[in-house]
Amino acid sequence: MRYRKIPDETIRRLPLYLRALIFSSEQGRNSISSKNLADFIGVNSAQIRKDFSYFGDFGTRGVGYDIEKLVKHIKKILKLNVVQKVALVGVGNLGSAVLAYPGFKIYGFDIAAAFDNNPKRISKKINNILIENTIKFKTLKKRGINLAIIAVPQDNAQQTAEALIKAGIKGILNFSPCYIIVPERIKVITIDIAMDLARLPYYMPISSLASRKG
Amino acid sequence: MRYRKIPDETIRRLPLYLRALIFSSEQGRNSISSKNLADFIGVNSAQIRKDFSYFGDFGTRGVGYDIEKLVKHIKKILKLNVVQKVALVGVGNLGSAVLAYPGFKIYGFDIAAAFDNNPKRISKKINNILIENTIKFKTLKKRGINLAIIAVPQDNAQQTAEALIKAGIKGILNFSPCYIIVPERIKVITIDIAMDLARLPYYMPISSLASRKG
Repeated sequence: MRYRKIPDETIRRLPLYLRALIFSSEQGRNSISSKNLADFIGVNSAQIRKDFSYFGDFGTRGVGYDIEKLVKHIKKILKLNVVQKVALVGVGNLGSAVLAYPGFKIYGFDIAAAFDNNPKRISKKINNILIENTIKFKTLKKRGINLAIIAVPQDNAQQTAEALIKAGIKGILNFSPCYIIVPERIKVITIDIAMDLARLPYYMPISSLASRKG
Repeated sequence: MRYRKIPDETIRRLPLYLRALIFSSEQGRNSISSKNLADFIGVNSAQIRKDFSYFGDFGTRGVGYDIEKLVKHIKKILKLNVVQKVALVGVGNLGSAVLAYPGFKIYGFDIAAAFDNNPKRISKKINNILIENTIKFKTLKKRGINLAIIAVPQDNAQQTAEALIKAGIKGILNFSPCYIIVPERIKVITIDIAMDLARLPYYMPISSLASRKG
């Protein structure tokens, strides 16, 4: 089944819907209205209807969306209806936190490998995952790993990305606060935790502002 | 100066624009076209013009946007034209990574305090920041700290948030993969790193899909 091209902004919201739907399902619900779903995740219901219109009609007036069907459909669009294997590169504080992160499972991710170039870390295990030397990148393709998370120091991010792409990686989640330059066929999503923080003060009351600069 | 209500989705993109503009400015540019800015951050230029329309007109046809003016303006809207002090709670792997993260400075954040309830961590310093006992939350207000980052285990997130709010915190960046329930006046942004990863497979070529589930 083919879908018409879905805008990036809609794709960005689909995992948000997916998580909320799975959560609702775990609470024992079978259906949810666009209004309830909207309130739950903090967007407006018109946005939800517009986003869902890209891949068909899952709502019934007065009943709402069928959660099970919708979850299945969103997973299919996001290609999360298959186990997606992921390699982590860089097992410092951030990388260790990623390995211990409990939130990957609901999306069907399998953190299947971890790499570092620090001899003190290589051969150790974290969360039952063996830390391998980065020279083992060449085994990624054979192991069916197409995605990687980069949690290396900023200065190593570009060369790490290049080595991963050479080894067959198709998509990268980048935690280094820098731009990584990759060929067009490769998708990079950069997480900048400071950028998320940068949205917070907007919502603060004026009276809580700190000292003025300069 | 008052602005008309800016949609959350636009606010979400403003830090993205801000980072790209600061980066361009550091490269020695004084102006940038909406097309170039769009290409740089991967949205379309119509979106940029629409987002900027909420707070005035900063473009000159054929010249583009005045970077310095635009940076100043976006910072003002986001209330980043003042130093925003932030407390970190939970100095495990993730919290330690946050303390070492170099990306907060460009937005004007000052990670001014760190807290933990593990006696082994209390009184130590990371990146020159003293780790304090969480019973010291009560000093936050006096110290002018209105924002907090929560990097505690999932099971402690809700009670940590409640203690922080009681101590005067107005905005929370939450790294625990769970929903935190707060009064309406408090803003919480939850970062789910798995959710960002969940967008990646959509962009992969079909041939790179892993084994089908069940």
